[in-house]
Amino acid sequence: MTNGLHDPQTRGFASDNYAGAHPEVLEALGRANGGHQPSYGADVYTARLAELLVDHFGAGVQGFGVFNGTGANVVGLQAMTPRWGSVITAASAHIHTDEAGAPERVAGLKLLTVPTGDGKLRPDDLERFPVDPTDVHHPLPAVVSITQSTEYGTLYTPDELAALTERAHRLGLTVHVDGARIANAAASLGVPLRAISTDVGVDVLSLGGTKNGVLFGEIVLVINPDAVDGIDYLRKLNMQLASKMRFLSAQFVALLDDDLWLRSAARANAMATSLRNGLQQRLDAGTISGVGFSQPTQANTILATLPDGAADRLRQHFAFYDWDRAAREVRWVCSFDTTESDVDQFLAAITTELG
Amino acid sequence: MTNGLHDPQTRGFASDNYAGAHPEVLEALGRANGGHQPSYGADVYTARLAELLVDHFGAGVQGFGVFNGTGANVVGLQAMTPRWGSVITAASAHIHTDEAGAPERVAGLKLLTVPTGDGKLRPDDLERFPVDPTDVHHPLPAVVSITQSTEYGTLYTPDELAALTERAHRLGLTVHVDGARIANAAASLGVPLRAISTDVGVDVLSLGGTKNGVLFGEIVLVINPDAVDGIDYLRKLNMQLASKMRFLSAQFVALLDDDLWLRSAARANAMATSLRNGLQQRLDAGTISGVGFSQPTQANTILATLPDGAADRLRQHFAFYDWDRAAREVRWVCSFDTTESDVDQFLAAITTELG
Amino acid sequence: MTNGLHDPQTRGFASDNYAGAHPEVLEALGRANGGHQPSYGADVYTARLAELLVDHFGAGVQGFGVFNGTGANVVGLQAMTPRWGSVITAASAHIHTDEAGAPERVAGLKLLTVPTGDGKLRPDDLERFPVDPTDVHHPLPAVVSITQSTEYGTLYTPDELAALTERAHRLGLTVHVDGARIANAAASLGVPLRAISTDVGVDVLSLGGTKNGVLFGEIVLVINPDAVDGIDYLRKLNMQLASKMRFLSAQFVALLDDDLWLRSAARANAMATSLRNGLQQRLDAGTISGVGFSQPTQANTILATLPDGAADRLRQHFAFYDWDRAAREVRWVCSFDTTESDVDQFLAAITTELG
Amino acid sequence: MTNGLHDPQTRGFASDNYAGAHPEVLEALGRANGGHQPSYGADVYTARLAELLVDHFGAGVQGFGVFNGTGANVVGLQAMTPRWGSVITAASAHIHTDEAGAPERVAGLKLLTVPTGDGKLRPDDLERFPVDPTDVHHPLPAVVSITQSTEYGTLYTPDELAALTERAHRLGLTVHVDGARIANAAASLGVPLRAISTDVGVDVLSLGGTKNGVLFGEIVLVINPDAVDGIDYLRKLNMQLASKMRFLSAQFVALLDDDLWLRSAARANAMATSLRNGLQQRLDAGTISGVGFSQPTQANTILATLPDGAADRLRQHFAFYDWDRAAREVRWVCSFDTTESDVDQFLAAITTELG
Repeated sequence: MTNGLHDPQTRGFASDNYAGAHPEVLEALGRANGGHQPSYGADVYTARLAELLVDHFGAGVQGFGVFNGTGANVVGLQAMTPRWGSVITAASAHIHTDEAGAPERVAGLKLLTVPTGDGKLRPDDLERFPVDPTDVHHPLPAVVSITQSTEYGTLYTPDELAALTERAHRLGLTVHVDGARIANAAASLGVPLRAISTDVGVDVLSLGGTKNGVLFGEIVLVINPDAVDGIDYLRKLNMQLASKMRFLSAQFVALLDDDLWLRSAARANAMATSLRNGLQQRLDAGTISGVGFSQPTQANTILATLPDGAADRLRQHFAFYDWDRAAREVRWVCSFDTTESDVDQFLAAITTELG
Repeated sequence: MTNGLHDPQTRGFASDNYAGAHPEVLEALGRANGGHQPSYGADVYTARLAELLVDHFGAGVQGFGVFNGTGANVVGLQAMTPRWGSVITAASAHIHTDEAGAPERVAGLKLLTVPTGDGKLRPDDLERFPVDPTDVHHPLPAVVSITQSTEYGTLYTPDELAALTERAHRLGLTVHVDGARIANAAASLGVPLRAISTDVGVDVLSLGGTKNGVLFGEIVLVINPDAVDGIDYLRKLNMQLASKMRFLSAQFVALLDDDLWLRSAARANAMATSLRNGLQQRLDAGTISGVGFSQPTQANTILATLPDGAADRLRQHFAFYDWDRAAREVRWVCSFDTTESDVDQFLAAITTELG
Repeated sequence: MTNGLHDPQTRGFASDNYAGAHPEVLEALGRANGGHQPSYGADVYTARLAELLVDHFGAGVQGFGVFNGTGANVVGLQAMTPRWGSVITAASAHIHTDEAGAPERVAGLKLLTVPTGDGKLRPDDLERFPVDPTDVHHPLPAVVSITQSTEYGTLYTPDELAALTERAHRLGLTVHVDGARIANAAASLGVPLRAISTDVGVDVLSLGGTKNGVLFGEIVLVINPDAVDGIDYLRKLNMQLASKMRFLSAQFVALLDDDLWLRSAARANAMATSLRNGLQQRLDAGTISGVGFSQPTQANTILATLPDGAADRLRQHFAFYDWDRAAREVRWVCSFDTTESDVDQFLAAITTELG
Repeated sequence: MTNGLHDPQTRGFASDNYAGAHPEVLEALGRANGGHQPSYGADVYTARLAELLVDHFGAGVQGFGVFNGTGANVVGLQAMTPRWGSVITAASAHIHTDEAGAPERVAGLKLLTVPTGDGKLRPDDLERFPVDPTDVHHPLPAVVSITQSTEYGTLYTPDELAALTERAHRLGLTVHVDGARIANAAASLGVPLRAISTDVGVDVLSLGGTKNGVLFGEIVLVINPDAVDGIDYLRKLNMQLASKMRFLSAQFVALLDDDLWLRSAARANAMATSLRNGLQQRLDAGTISGVGFSQPTQANTILATLPDGAADRLRQHFAFYDWDRAAREVRWVCSFDTTESDVDQFLAAITTELG
């Protein structure tokens, strides 16, 4: 078998996990290979990653590599929550809608959800769930979990984050960020990663890698060690401890050792902006009609509505998902490897369809 | 960063997960990269793997890629067991001793353990746990889980497996094999993989990859579809569903598409045999003394006892683990990349120490 | 110790579980005492209860006595739900708000909640959670759980129930009723118990006893045996199997063998109606002001709003709970032992406070 | 319905939970009835019980009433154990053999079992499970759980208990006692309850009521508050918090307010001794043959072996259970209501059978 089984030139807008790995990540795997290294994280690549995490997020942070995003969220949240504690989150949160109930079923977490229009929690939302430690009947709130950038492609600004964590901490809650796309958020906001995590009071971050160009792997980043308990045990018992950890860590070293994380995220964001702008121009010019935008495009995701049947016809050429089929709402996601040419071809197809 | 951080020429005898990935596996990752492929297993590499699994294990088998061995065991066993069912296993089983209680804590499984001398269950052991569906107090046995090759480096012969599964099925139990090192078992026995799984009545197999040369990944192989329920849901909710599944599958394609699985396992076994034989010759010749063997060496693992202090001194040069420190028992494991020179150097060091 | 420690003439409006046991229930315990009877449900009182359950609910129903309401809900729902299934319920449901997360933490259930104004689900609410067995990411809906009478003191009519169960079944969902106060519902609607359970397609009912006059105990009533799996095991492993089951069953025999269940529930309802009517008359007459009613009073519960501070002053003489303190909303509950005199005294106190 | 459905004069030797409630307990329920009392433990009977627990077990102890023995064990052990902690126990422990896996399935506990001949752990047994907090793979031992009196009817002396708790604490483990029959143990040893709990270093005790003459109910007695975390939450979320708690507490007030606990336990013990002595005399005299005793009879349980078929024939007249059918071993249990006449009749029947 000398050639791959697929066409490496075909790309779509279905998800940033349809993309493969960034070539620099694959090279890093090659360098990390060969010889023996201690397993389960006692290797030199994990040690190097620990240094880089401090460089990016500040002294005292500690990272725990896990296999995937659900694993990162579950391990992090479980370590933040006593057996009787609950997690306040947006009703649109990935942990509520797309993890098959893993937080509840595996970690025994209770989710308290807030309906939102844009996927973002506000400080006042937290007041809906009173923290009364004398009441053993109501599920005691313990953690707030938000997503940055959100499932809707929207962003929290640093000020919004600071206000939310300030309120949470005042209420006795700790703050978790599902950062599957935190690189996209930082790139879009033009700030370092710590400006939307450490510097605004986040306690624990699921630091995403998969959507940022690695093959597999996320980091549970503990920013505030007082906010967690037993995380090393919990990673293991939740089946998230890789034996050949060097390969997981080496990928994040590749992302963080120079600016690969930022280049990849910025490219994905730029392509989403380009696609959206291209559509807006055509709409303004009357070249096309029938496209609506359901949310602002602040990172690498576009939520749009299309005329009846248009989505299915477009999908014959470009992969993408329905977001809310009843509402004719679709989701387009750009990736680190999306090209201007990909965007142009997609714009052309839409123009043909809706012109 | 152009060079790796470690010495790719240093190897020891600590574990087959201290080894990296086989170069052919890394090449396969490169071929699977580029372009977009559907996530979560709808890709062409996963489809190709499905064919290869049928080639190796027979028509009707179905594989579910997961991240690690604990994940494979937990997902497989949970799919085989009703909420009130229990798992009969050897007291030395990895699921009992080395998975931090994941089967109990994550999957709600009850383990019923049998003390053994060699890590192997016998048919009569199953009779110790009566299957009485009218008794809601005693934990109802549902599954037998064995390890092949065992944690002690011993093997079940095909006949032994057939006798065990026959008894299990007669008692209304299904049979799970933790095959983290099943490739070593098949290689040592000189039989195809199906001869110690499909052909002897095994229902579900954790098909190991990590110890056979991949970076990460195992397969829950469902041989008997009637023995499982909801495994696709359980893989997801147990946080074992990789988004970029193509990379997990491509590694197993590399193992199974030609005989890489066999070459790697056979090499590891041969090196273990060479080390054991070398020691035995020196013992017979009186060149060294004080080494005892606790178990037969039937695959790639040697359990040996050493004189007081010898293990710690040898470890200054070669990594390996204590197995039972109080008994001065150590474990030496060979890997797909262990060389004759590694063995020779280790033999020389032992000779110096114990000569 | 010859006298009790409390005043048996003091009653309030805090909860129907502030009441003790109906004297006829205590007498039944005495008759069930003495001699030896098989434990865990093999006794004659449990056999007699089985007959009575068939009398009230129809041929084929089967009851499983448990200790309390949370136990009944958790055991019933777990038996109705595969490990990957979810439960659609109102956001106000007791299982979501007042069971400390037991459904999630103990039974691994995922709750999908619907905001409602009156605590009642409508058929269209079920459509919000698509049942797509090919999607392993979204938590698969499996059961609808409603409360009758609701936590707000409102009722489903038999027609409403039939419409809801019809839609649920059409969608592939089964239907669970939290009937902690189902006796109050039947009494208020003037129908037999089966008219709002068996006859309208309910699959499993938590048949409440505690709020209907027993010391402890509820029944998981399986109306549709195809809707559950392993419930006898699940009762035991969820710590809900009483060893001296005869005492649990004998209490329900007392409730169901003549019309004690109905007399008790009707009395509680009548007292709530009397209290509400008394207040309404005083409001209409202008004798008092400042009381608002948040919900219709259809069973034994009144939700009302009071002027600032009034609730705390009234509570110095009569026990009752805030329902939503920020909204100055309180809850008054009548019980099987509430008397006309209790209501009159409470009305007098309110008149003094708000006159 | 004026009469009970069963014969209150029929008793056997099957289990101390075949017995009903002690008449003084039923009377106490009557006194606790009537009027309203706050639910969930804020009542005067629970307050009185708290005083009595201090009287019996010493200052600082705190009791948490639960429904049954499995509930007491699971709530207590879960409160003592971090999510990653394990419980060392005898292989014969009720928590391992007769609770349907509740500790594992509900509380996520991992049990580490020790085979014993007599159901008792020795200090050295604890050394088999190294406590190494740096090892996240092996399940970390956290608690030792023993049964007093044991499932075999044997006893720990105060000195044996002190030696065991001393070793446990030295190893960093806390100590839990399943005291379903602790009253029988204290009565047999002729010591107060605290002499085999508080005074010998026990941290948490499941204080049994059911087998001591109540209808239902056990107490999780926290002797060392530093050994538990969140037990009030855990009782609720484990479905063990009774709403009408006054009835649970009043029964224990009846047991502990005078010496009812002791009278009941001493009677059960005395009857077991009488039965055993009667058999031994007949064996010594050669009046009967074929009875063997498998364990000493130190409390209210006799384990004996019988000739083939004898058990089934005797059971036509007296209820009792097989303990190990393959070994022709049976269990006879005496209760608080067993009479000399019951024993005499049983002895006569055995004499007829085996004479």
